[in-house]
Amino acid sequence: MSATLTPRPAQKTGRVVWFTGLSGAGKSTLAAALYEELRARDLPVELLDGDAVRENLSKGLGFSREDRDTNVRRIAFVAGLLARHGVTVLVSAISPYADTRREVLDTLPGTIEVFVDAPLEVVTKRDVKGLYLKALAGEIPHFTGVSDPYEAPSSPDLHLRTDQISVQDGVKELLAKLGLNA
Amino acid sequence: MSATLTPRPAQKTGRVVWFTGLSGAGKSTLAAALYEELRARDLPVELLDGDAVRENLSKGLGFSREDRDTNVRRIAFVAGLLARHGVTVLVSAISPYADTRREVLDTLPGTIEVFVDAPLEVVTKRDVKGLYLKALAGEIPHFTGVSDPYEAPSSPDLHLRTDQISVQDGVKELLAKLGLNA
Repeated sequence: MSATLTPRPAQKTGRVVWFTGLSGAGKSTLAAALYEELRARDLPVELLDGDAVRENLSKGLGFSREDRDTNVRRIAFVAGLLARHGVTVLVSAISPYADTRREVLDTLPGTIEVFVDAPLEVVTKRDVKGLYLKALAGEIPHFTGVSDPYEAPSSPDLHLRTDQISVQDGVKELLAKLGLNA
Repeated sequence: MSATLTPRPAQKTGRVVWFTGLSGAGKSTLAAALYEELRARDLPVELLDGDAVRENLSKGLGFSREDRDTNVRRIAFVAGLLARHGVTVLVSAISPYADTRREVLDTLPGTIEVFVDAPLEVVTKRDVKGLYLKALAGEIPHFTGVSDPYEAPSSPDLHLRTDQISVQDGVKELLAKLGLNA
Protein backbone atom coordinates (compact mmCIF):
# COMPACT_ATOMS: atom_id res chain seq x y z
CA MET A 1 0.00 0.00 0.00
CA SER A 2 1.32 3.42 -0.88
CA ALA A 3 1.85 5.92 1.89
CA THR A 4 -1.34 7.78 2.68
CA LEU A 5 0.15 10.18 5.16
CA THR A 6 0.40 13.78 4.17
CA PRO A 7 0.39 16.81 6.40
CA ARG A 8 -2.96 18.49 6.56
CA PRO A 9 -3.60 22.21 6.60
CA ALA A 10 -3.90 23.61 10.11
CA GLN A 11 -6.62 21.54 11.65
CA LYS A 12 -9.86 23.21 12.61
CA THR A 13 -11.87 21.70 15.37
CA GLY A 14 -15.18 20.23 14.33
CA ARG A 15 -18.43 21.03 16.04
CA VAL A 16 -20.82 18.65 17.73
CA VAL A 17 -24.51 18.94 16.96
CA TRP A 18 -26.37 17.08 19.69
CA PHE A 19 -29.98 16.12 18.95
CA THR A 20 -31.97 15.33 22.07
CA GLY A 21 -35.63 14.46 22.37
CA LEU A 22 -38.19 11.71 22.77
CA SER A 23 -38.15 8.56 20.72
CA GLY A 24 -40.03 9.36 17.52
CA ALA A 25 -39.54 13.11 17.84
CA GLY A 26 -37.48 13.13 14.65
CA LYS A 27 -33.88 13.28 15.91
CA SER A 28 -32.50 10.65 13.56
CA THR A 29 -34.47 11.96 10.60
CA LEU A 30 -33.11 15.46 11.07
CA ALA A 31 -29.59 14.25 11.78
CA ALA A 32 -29.59 12.06 8.68
CA ALA A 33 -30.90 14.91 6.51
CA LEU A 34 -28.24 17.28 7.84
CA TYR A 35 -25.60 14.57 7.35
CA GLU A 36 -26.52 14.24 3.67
CA GLU A 37 -26.48 17.99 3.26
CA LEU A 38 -22.99 18.32 4.73
CA ARG A 39 -21.72 15.32 2.79
CA ALA A 40 -22.98 16.89 -0.42
CA ARG A 41 -20.82 19.90 0.42
CA ASP A 42 -17.75 17.72 0.97
CA LEU A 43 -17.59 18.65 4.61
CA PRO A 44 -16.14 16.11 7.03
CA VAL A 45 -19.08 14.82 9.00
CA GLU A 46 -19.97 11.77 11.06
CA LEU A 47 -23.32 10.60 12.35
CA LEU A 48 -23.49 8.88 15.72
CA ASP A 49 -26.98 7.53 15.99
CA GLY A 50 -28.20 6.29 19.34
CA ASP A 51 -29.27 2.86 18.17
CA ALA A 52 -26.10 2.15 16.18
CA VAL A 53 -23.99 3.40 19.04
CA ARG A 54 -25.75 1.16 21.52
CA GLU A 55 -24.94 -1.77 19.27
CA ASN A 56 -21.28 -0.88 18.85
CA LEU A 57 -20.34 0.81 22.09
CA SER A 58 -22.89 0.02 24.71
CA LYS A 59 -24.21 -3.47 24.23
CA GLY A 60 -25.14 -4.81 27.64
CA LEU A 61 -26.17 -1.45 29.02
CA GLY A 62 -29.79 -1.06 30.01
CA PHE A 63 -32.03 1.92 30.54
CA SER A 64 -31.44 2.79 34.17
CA ARG A 65 -30.31 6.35 34.77
CA GLU A 66 -26.75 5.11 35.35
CA ASP A 67 -26.66 3.08 32.14
CA ARG A 68 -28.20 5.85 30.08
CA ASP A 69 -25.64 8.29 31.45
CA THR A 70 -22.81 5.89 30.66
CA ASN A 71 -24.10 5.57 27.13
CA VAL A 72 -24.27 9.35 26.71
CA ARG A 73 -20.73 9.79 28.08
CA ARG A 74 -19.38 7.17 25.68
CA ILE A 75 -21.00 8.88 22.73
CA ALA A 76 -19.52 12.18 23.89
CA PHE A 77 -16.07 10.62 24.22
CA VAL A 78 -16.17 9.40 20.64
CA ALA A 79 -17.67 12.66 19.39
CA GLY A 80 -14.82 14.54 21.04
CA LEU A 81 -12.19 12.36 19.38
CA LEU A 82 -13.71 12.99 15.97
CA ALA A 83 -14.31 16.71 16.53
CA ARG A 84 -10.71 17.34 17.41
CA HIS A 85 -9.79 16.03 13.99
CA GLY A 86 -12.04 18.52 12.26
CA VAL A 87 -15.11 16.36 11.89
CA THR A 88 -18.57 17.80 12.44
CA VAL A 89 -20.30 15.19 14.57
CA LEU A 90 -24.04 14.74 14.57
CA VAL A 91 -25.27 12.89 17.64
CA SER A 92 -28.80 11.57 17.78
CA ALA A 93 -29.57 10.25 21.23
CA ILE A 94 -32.55 10.60 23.54
CA SER A 95 -30.13 11.69 26.30
CA PRO A 96 -32.97 12.40 28.71
CA TYR A 97 -31.11 13.85 31.70
CA ALA A 98 -30.38 17.56 31.57
CA ASP A 99 -27.42 17.44 33.98
CA THR A 100 -25.63 14.72 32.09
CA ARG A 101 -26.27 16.39 28.75
CA ARG A 102 -24.90 19.65 30.11
CA GLU A 103 -21.88 17.88 31.60
CA VAL A 104 -20.86 16.24 28.35
CA LEU A 105 -21.72 19.16 26.08
CA ASP A 106 -19.49 21.37 28.23
CA THR A 107 -16.54 19.09 27.45
CA LEU A 108 -17.06 19.36 23.70
CA PRO A 109 -16.13 22.24 21.43
CA GLY A 110 -18.69 24.53 19.85
CA THR A 111 -21.59 22.26 20.62
CA ILE A 112 -25.06 22.96 19.34
CA GLU A 113 -27.77 21.47 21.50
CA VAL A 114 -30.85 20.81 19.41
CA PHE A 115 -34.09 20.06 21.18
CA VAL A 116 -36.12 17.95 18.77
CA ASP A 117 -39.54 18.44 20.15
CA ALA A 118 -42.96 17.04 19.46
CA PRO A 119 -45.74 16.56 22.01
CA LEU A 120 -46.17 13.13 23.47
CA GLU A 121 -49.52 12.76 21.70
CA VAL A 122 -47.82 13.37 18.37
CA VAL A 123 -44.96 10.92 18.86
CA THR A 124 -47.46 8.40 20.19
CA LYS A 125 -49.45 8.76 16.99
CA ARG A 126 -46.30 8.42 14.89
CA ASP A 127 -45.09 5.54 17.08
CA VAL A 128 -42.31 4.84 14.60
CA LYS A 129 -41.18 1.68 16.33
CA GLY A 130 -44.54 0.66 17.72
CA LEU A 131 -43.25 1.12 21.23
CA TYR A 132 -45.39 3.85 22.72
CA LEU A 133 -48.51 1.71 22.73
CA LYS A 134 -46.64 -0.99 24.60
CA ALA A 135 -45.12 1.52 26.99
CA LEU A 136 -48.49 3.13 27.66
CA ALA A 137 -49.88 -0.33 28.34
CA GLY A 138 -47.21 -0.69 31.01
CA GLU A 139 -45.28 -3.31 29.09
CA ILE A 140 -42.01 -1.37 28.81
CA PRO A 141 -40.41 -0.09 31.97
CA HIS A 142 -37.98 2.82 31.59
CA PHE A 143 -39.56 4.11 28.41
CA THR A 144 -38.65 7.77 28.07
CA GLY A 145 -41.62 10.11 28.22
CA VAL A 146 -43.96 7.44 29.50
CA SER A 147 -42.42 5.42 32.30
CA ASP A 148 -39.08 7.25 32.50
CA PRO A 149 -38.32 10.96 32.67
CA TYR A 150 -37.36 13.25 29.83
CA GLU A 151 -35.85 16.52 30.97
CA ALA A 152 -36.22 19.03 28.17
CA PRO A 153 -33.35 21.48 27.64
CA SER A 154 -34.14 24.81 29.29
CA SER A 155 -32.16 26.85 26.78
CA PRO A 156 -31.24 24.76 23.75
CA ASP A 157 -29.30 26.38 20.92
CA LEU A 158 -32.09 25.34 18.63
CA HIS A 159 -35.63 24.23 19.40
CA LEU A 160 -37.28 22.43 16.52
CA ARG A 161 -40.97 21.60 16.81
CA THR A 162 -41.19 18.76 14.36
CA ASP A 163 -44.97 18.74 14.48
CA GLN A 164 -44.89 22.28 13.11
CA ILE A 165 -42.01 22.45 10.64
CA SER A 166 -40.77 20.26 7.83
CA VAL A 167 -37.50 18.34 7.85
CA GLN A 168 -36.31 20.66 5.09
CA ASP A 169 -36.98 23.74 7.20
CA GLY A 170 -35.31 22.11 10.19
CA VAL A 171 -32.20 21.48 8.12
CA LYS A 172 -32.21 25.13 7.03
CA GLU A 173 -32.16 26.25 10.64
CA LEU A 174 -29.39 23.80 11.43
CA LEU A 175 -27.27 25.00 8.54
CA ALA A 176 -27.73 28.58 9.71
CA LYS A 177 -26.53 27.59 13.18
CA LEU A 178 -23.44 26.08 11.55
CA GLY A 179 -22.84 29.32 9.70
CA LEU A 180 -23.65 27.79 6.33
CA ASN A 181 -25.97 28.95 3.59
CA ALA A 182 -29.07 26.89 3.02
CA MET B 1 -18.55 31.27 17.34
CA SER B 2 -17.43 31.79 13.76
CA ALA B 3 -18.10 29.10 11.22
CA THR B 4 -15.40 26.46 11.28
CA LEU B 5 -16.65 24.44 8.36
CA THR B 6 -14.59 24.47 5.21
CA PRO B 7 -14.39 21.78 2.57
CA ARG B 8 -11.35 19.62 2.89
CA PRO B 9 -9.20 18.31 0.06
CA ALA B 10 -10.22 14.82 -1.06
CA GLN B 11 -10.04 12.80 2.14
CA LYS B 12 -7.47 10.08 2.40
CA THR B 13 -8.22 7.21 4.68
CA GLY B 14 -6.01 6.93 7.71
CA ARG B 15 -4.28 3.75 8.72
CA VAL B 16 -4.62 1.83 11.94
CA VAL B 17 -1.47 0.67 13.71
CA TRP B 18 -2.50 -2.02 16.16
CA PHE B 19 -0.03 -2.85 18.94
CA THR B 20 -0.66 -6.22 20.54
CA GLY B 21 1.35 -7.97 23.22
CA LEU B 22 1.63 -8.79 26.89
CA SER B 23 1.21 -6.23 29.62
CA GLY B 24 4.62 -4.63 30.09
CA ALA B 25 5.87 -5.62 26.63
CA GLY B 26 6.13 -1.97 25.66
CA LYS B 27 3.01 -1.37 23.56
CA SER B 28 2.05 1.93 25.12
CA THR B 29 5.63 3.17 25.19
CA LEU B 30 6.08 2.52 21.48
CA ALA B 31 2.66 3.87 20.60
CA ALA B 32 3.29 7.06 22.57
CA ALA B 33 6.69 7.54 20.94
CA LEU B 34 5.21 7.06 17.46
CA TYR B 35 2.38 9.41 18.37
CA GLU B 36 4.83 12.17 19.29
CA GLU B 37 6.78 11.58 16.11
CA LEU B 38 3.68 11.88 13.90
CA ARG B 39 2.42 14.88 15.83
CA ALA B 40 5.77 16.59 15.29
CA ARG B 41 5.21 16.13 11.57
CA ASP B 42 1.73 17.66 11.75
CA LEU B 43 0.11 14.42 10.72
CA PRO B 44 -3.39 13.71 11.99
CA VAL B 45 -2.97 10.99 14.59
CA GLU B 46 -4.88 9.62 17.56
CA LEU B 47 -3.79 7.27 20.29
CA LEU B 48 -6.26 4.78 21.70
CA ASP B 49 -4.60 3.26 24.70
CA GLY B 50 -6.12 0.17 26.26
CA ASP B 51 -6.37 1.53 29.77
CA ALA B 52 -7.85 4.89 28.75
CA VAL B 53 -10.28 3.15 26.45
CA ARG B 54 -11.41 0.79 29.18
CA GLU B 55 -12.16 3.82 31.33
CA ASN B 56 -14.08 5.67 28.63
CA LEU B 57 -15.69 2.95 26.57
CA SER B 58 -15.66 -0.27 28.49
CA LYS B 59 -16.13 0.41 32.16
CA GLY B 60 -17.92 -2.57 33.62
CA LEU B 61 -16.35 -5.07 31.29
CA GLY B 62 -14.15 -7.70 32.86
CA PHE B 63 -11.46 -9.97 31.53
CA SER B 64 -13.40 -12.99 30.34
CA ARG B 65 -12.84 -13.87 26.71
CA GLU B 66 -16.21 -12.40 25.84
CA ASP B 67 -15.54 -9.11 27.62
CA ARG B 68 -12.04 -8.79 26.19
CA ASP B 69 -13.43 -9.37 22.70
CA THR B 70 -16.14 -6.77 23.24
CA ASN B 71 -13.48 -4.29 24.35
CA VAL B 72 -11.37 -5.00 21.27
CA ARG B 73 -14.38 -4.61 18.98
CA ARG B 74 -15.28 -1.27 20.54
CA ILE B 75 -11.77 0.02 20.08
CA ALA B 76 -11.86 -1.11 16.47
CA PHE B 77 -15.20 0.62 15.92
CA VAL B 78 -13.79 3.93 17.15
CA ALA B 79 -10.53 3.44 15.24
CA GLY B 80 -12.53 2.89 12.07
CA LEU B 81 -14.52 6.09 12.57
CA LEU B 82 -11.33 8.09 12.99
CA ALA B 83 -9.46 6.39 10.16
CA ARG B 84 -12.17 7.16 7.66
CA HIS B 85 -11.61 10.82 8.40
CA GLY B 86 -7.93 10.58 7.55
CA VAL B 87 -6.59 10.02 11.05
CA THR B 88 -3.78 7.56 11.66
CA VAL B 89 -4.93 5.63 14.71
CA LEU B 90 -2.50 3.98 17.10
CA VAL B 91 -4.15 1.29 19.19
CA SER B 92 -2.37 -0.13 22.19
CA ALA B 93 -4.30 -3.08 23.58
CA ILE B 94 -3.26 -6.52 24.78
CA SER B 95 -5.92 -8.00 22.46
CA PRO B 96 -4.88 -11.55 23.28
CA TYR B 97 -7.10 -13.56 20.94
CA ALA B 98 -5.78 -14.07 17.42
CA ASP B 99 -9.19 -14.70 15.84
CA THR B 100 -10.74 -11.56 17.26
CA ARG B 101 -7.71 -9.46 16.31
CA ARG B 102 -7.87 -10.80 12.78
CA GLU B 103 -11.61 -10.20 12.60
CA VAL B 104 -11.37 -6.55 13.58
CA LEU B 105 -8.20 -5.79 11.65
CA ASP B 106 -9.85 -7.13 8.52
CA THR B 107 -12.59 -4.51 8.89
CA LEU B 108 -10.10 -1.65 9.09
CA PRO B 109 -8.19 -0.06 6.22
CA GLY B 110 -4.45 -0.49 5.75
CA THR B 111 -3.90 -1.91 9.19
CA ILE B 112 -0.45 -2.63 10.50
CA GLU B 113 -0.41 -5.36 13.13
CA VAL B 114 2.55 -4.86 15.42
CA PHE B 115 3.54 -7.68 17.71
CA VAL B 116 5.25 -6.05 20.67
CA ASP B 117 7.15 -8.95 22.04
CA ALA B 118 9.26 -9.61 25.08
CA PRO B 119 9.63 -12.95 26.86
CA LEU B 120 7.52 -13.50 29.94
CA GLU B 121 10.65 -13.51 32.11
CA VAL B 122 11.52 -10.03 30.82
CA VAL B 123 8.10 -8.49 31.34
CA THR B 124 7.95 -10.15 34.73
CA LYS B 125 11.22 -8.47 35.64
CA ARG B 126 9.97 -5.13 34.34
CA ASP B 127 6.59 -5.66 36.03
CA VAL B 128 5.66 -2.10 35.23
CA LYS B 129 2.44 -2.21 37.19
CA GLY B 130 3.57 -4.71 39.80
CA LEU B 131 1.00 -7.18 38.59
CA TYR B 132 3.02 -10.15 37.38
CA LEU B 133 4.18 -11.08 40.87
CA LYS B 134 0.59 -11.08 42.06
CA ALA B 135 -0.56 -13.03 39.02
CA LEU B 136 2.21 -15.59 39.45
CA ALA B 137 1.18 -15.91 43.07
CA GLY B 138 -2.28 -16.82 41.85
CA GLU B 139 -3.84 -13.61 43.11
CA ILE B 140 -5.06 -12.34 39.73
CA PRO B 141 -7.27 -14.59 37.66
CA HIS B 142 -7.41 -13.87 33.93
CA PHE B 143 -3.98 -12.27 33.80
CA THR B 144 -2.73 -12.50 30.24
CA GLY B 145 0.38 -14.61 29.85
CA VAL B 146 0.09 -16.10 33.32
CA SER B 147 -3.44 -17.22 34.08
CA ASP B 148 -5.03 -16.29 30.75
CA PRO B 149 -3.91 -17.03 27.19
CA TYR B 150 -1.98 -14.78 24.86
CA GLU B 151 -2.12 -15.87 21.25
CA ALA B 152 0.81 -14.31 19.44
CA PRO B 153 0.24 -13.15 15.86
CA SER B 154 1.49 -15.77 13.42
CA SER B 155 2.40 -13.25 10.74
CA PRO B 156 2.38 -9.72 12.12
CA ASP B 157 3.28 -6.84 9.83
CA LEU B 158 5.98 -5.94 12.30
CA HIS B 159 7.52 -7.97 15.10
CA LEU B 160 9.38 -5.85 17.63
CA ARG B 161 11.42 -7.61 20.28
CA THR B 162 11.54 -4.91 22.90
CA ASP B 163 14.13 -6.78 24.94
CA GLN B 164 16.48 -6.49 21.96
CA ILE B 165 15.85 -3.11 20.35
CA SER B 166 15.43 0.42 21.64
CA VAL B 167 12.22 2.44 21.51
CA GLN B 168 13.96 4.72 19.01
CA ASP B 169 14.76 1.82 16.69
CA GLY B 170 11.24 0.51 17.06
CA VAL B 171 9.84 3.88 16.01
CA LYS B 172 12.14 3.85 12.98
CA GLU B 173 10.70 0.53 11.89
CA LEU B 174 7.19 1.79 12.44
CA LEU B 175 7.81 4.92 10.39
CA ALA B 176 9.19 2.79 7.57
CA LYS B 177 6.00 0.68 7.63
CA LEU B 178 4.01 3.89 7.32
CA GLY B 179 6.09 4.91 4.33
CA LEU B 180 7.75 7.77 6.20
CA ASN B 181 11.39 8.69 6.56
CA ALA B 182 12.90 8.27 9.99
